[in-house]
Amino acid sequence: MTNAPLYQALNTLLNQRFTQNVNVLEHHSKDESWHSSCAPQGVCYPHNTEEVSEIIKLCAQYQTPITAFGAGTSVEGQSIPSANSLCIDLSEMDQIVDINIQDLNCRVQAGVTRQQLNDSAQRQGLFFPIDPGANATIGGMCATRASGTNAVRYGTMKDNVLSLKAVMANGDIIETGTQARKSAAGLDLTSLLIGSEGTLAIITEITLKLHGIPDTIAAAQLPFSELGDATEFVTQVLQSGIPIARIELLDDVQINAVNAYNQMDLPETPTLFLEFHGSEAAVREQVDSVQAIAATLTPYPFAWSTLQEERNQLWKARHQALYAAKQLVANARVWTTDVCVPISKLSECLLATKKDLDEAGLLAPIVGHVGDGNFHTLMVLPEGDHAAEASAKAVNQKMIERAVAMGGTCTGEHGIGIGKKAALQFQHADTLPLMKQIKQALDPNDLLNPGKLYV
Amino acid sequence: MTNAPLYQALNTLLNQRFTQNVNVLEHHSKDESWHSSCAPQGVCYPHNTEEVSEIIKLCAQYQTPITAFGAGTSVEGQSIPSANSLCIDLSEMDQIVDINIQDLNCRVQAGVTRQQLNDSAQRQGLFFPIDPGANATIGGMCATRASGTNAVRYGTMKDNVLSLKAVMANGDIIETGTQARKSAAGLDLTSLLIGSEGTLAIITEITLKLHGIPDTIAAAQLPFSELGDATEFVTQVLQSGIPIARIELLDDVQINAVNAYNQMDLPETPTLFLEFHGSEAAVREQVDSVQAIAATLTPYPFAWSTLQEERNQLWKARHQALYAAKQLVANARVWTTDVCVPISKLSECLLATKKDLDEAGLLAPIVGHVGDGNFHTLMVLPEGDHAAEASAKAVNQKMIERAVAMGGTCTGEHGIGIGKKAALQFQHADTLPLMKQIKQALDPNDLLNPGKLYV
Repeated sequence: MTNAPLYQALNTLLNQRFTQNVNVLEHHSKDESWHSSCAPQGVCYPHNTEEVSEIIKLCAQYQTPITAFGAGTSVEGQSIPSANSLCIDLSEMDQIVDINIQDLNCRVQAGVTRQQLNDSAQRQGLFFPIDPGANATIGGMCATRASGTNAVRYGTMKDNVLSLKAVMANGDIIETGTQARKSAAGLDLTSLLIGSEGTLAIITEITLKLHGIPDTIAAAQLPFSELGDATEFVTQVLQSGIPIARIELLDDVQINAVNAYNQMDLPETPTLFLEFHGSEAAVREQVDSVQAIAATLTPYPFAWSTLQEERNQLWKARHQALYAAKQLVANARVWTTDVCVPISKLSECLLATKKDLDEAGLLAPIVGHVGDGNFHTLMVLPEGDHAAEASAKAVNQKMIERAVAMGGTCTGEHGIGIGKKAALQFQHADTLPLMKQIKQALDPNDLLNPGKLYV
Repeated sequence: MTNAPLYQALNTLLNQRFTQNVNVLEHHSKDESWHSSCAPQGVCYPHNTEEVSEIIKLCAQYQTPITAFGAGTSVEGQSIPSANSLCIDLSEMDQIVDINIQDLNCRVQAGVTRQQLNDSAQRQGLFFPIDPGANATIGGMCATRASGTNAVRYGTMKDNVLSLKAVMANGDIIETGTQARKSAAGLDLTSLLIGSEGTLAIITEITLKLHGIPDTIAAAQLPFSELGDATEFVTQVLQSGIPIARIELLDDVQINAVNAYNQMDLPETPTLFLEFHGSEAAVREQVDSVQAIAATLTPYPFAWSTLQEERNQLWKARHQALYAAKQLVANARVWTTDVCVPISKLSECLLATKKDLDEAGLLAPIVGHVGDGNFHTLMVLPEGDHAAEASAKAVNQKMIERAVAMGGTCTGEHGIGIGKKAALQFQHADTLPLMKQIKQALDPNDLLNPGKLYV
């Protein structure tokens, strides 16, 4: 199927910034997930909100669906186009409009990446805490309600966005929220768009909260003999109200992968990576409190450091978890899935998942933002091993059902995308019809990222 | 207009818990705002979500609108019925279903008040921080996106609700969110209902985050010679990242009212009431940092205390601000309005508002949750003084326009209700149509709290 008049109009609008080059289409056909690729019909590179609006008006006129693309780091297929879609690649909308020290916020275009933002913010003594691991775009992080390692202290995207500029399915440009820290003026459309995975609007500009870089940052690694001891430690730390900034679990399999990938020699046992933020005295107090809890639960020493180089090495190892897992087996791909449960259920959920993985004979490191009750399994699937794929599918389904039965969610941060639509239906059977009514009201012709989120 | 078959059906359903007693109708005809009262046709007192569902199904059958009523403490007319409405009074749904220490959360029926919840939570070493002043119900606080004195540290209702049980306009019972601390599963309907002012659903049960009671709580009062020095102090404290728990402004007029109402003798000058939460060492460190900033901005001493009795006296004075203002003039009523602006604009906004009030000759204390950039004017209107009413209307309009021009909002926490519908239209002209589309999709017959929020 071709759509020549639309492509001609886009060419006129964007000139060199609309392309049907086959390599470019291929690049925009996939994300970091295990889902099948699907190339778009063409790719647009707008430079501002008005151009996005013009593109969408043309697509509406020609009834052509649109999928937004940022860094392509989604993990449930959110940025994989549907057949006959156009792709709007926002990566050239990478302007940091301003950083406002007095109000501790900034305004960025949707294609700015979190590392780019942090490089700029750092020069002003500020940082943006949300860290999903990948160097995602801020727009993509909004669209998927990203969170990650710092969420236990700083919240998720939901908690750090003040305002969104976005383009609706008919091309209308809107701005949600305000620049004030709170508002009680009407429906919270900012929160509605955050996590809507590009199905309600294309987010083009964002006002984000920033935070002052803490005077002191200390990082620590803390190995445990048993997984259950590590989760007990997490529960005690949270209950004691210690404002820990990061509390990340890597199980024995993941530590093994990390050691191999980074030439490190960490003890190959379940390990927590911790980080503390505050004044020197506050950090010292937090570390003392945490050490006292650790002493009752692990025979391993508590190795901590405030040196930036040592901290960086630790977090580099954590961030490379996915790539380390991929290297465990040659020619393998990784099916990563996540669930999130109330903290009181975390230990039971983790241990049952580990048992499922063992029984299925799957090689699958576990990493988790355990301060939120959120963890990931990275199921390593050798190319062409259909039995392993079937096992992974079964384990994933068990994880979803268990998390929901425990009062938790089928995904803490990866989102629904293509991969968890049935899970969303299972978990939110009563509210999915409302989600669909809202989708129908705002995008009646299903032009925005069709095939995602809603069954 | 009568509706006998509906009333008979409600009588059968609820027996003594449906009434048309004229005193009860009168009690449910108003809130704490300046808006005209309007009595409902009848009042229902359900005891559980299922009964609310049955009531709404009957109302849908008879096309009779419904307004929910909690403690009646809304300040923009949110709980004032429209003509021919029924009222659902949720105050008998006052069960604390459970308090979960391990997960630091609780589940309550919508009619539980915040003081009732805190009395119970306290026995477990926990507290619920959101404090709008009035002893509102948790359901009402959700519906109006309440915040108040602790929001600078603990956020607003938006940040402290995990899950809502609610009844839709057709009687369907839904549950949004999960019991996990975060979720990326679909549209954020929890946030959509929070602040929807009873126009999208009736909230019946809530899962809330709780917090551990800090080891040490210190309160302080800090007078300033000039209002501008007080706001400069606020800016410096926030920028320095001190995790202050409360930072409340009372201007000279409000301090005068507080002194008269509480037989206190505070210096009659702009004053900040502060509170610090943390370990003993952390609180000491916060107080030291704040004192250092104060020393450069005010000649007044920094009077602080960790004694509960002294702290209670201070916060009682703050909480009674509205009642103290009412006592300034015999037979007066108070028109309270609020706006919220970015912190960088707070000083300019406050000083301009003060000038407006002076020029209009209005007696109007100012109090503010200044850590959020949010403040209230309490305009004291002598009974029958129509000139003062006209002046108040003009000042209110100026405040709204100024706040929006500064990138802020026409209301930080009071909401839209009846009183600020034109302001919502002014502020969110581009997104109000979307809000209406969502309302239309979820409540096509406009049965839920008609006449509120949407123009």
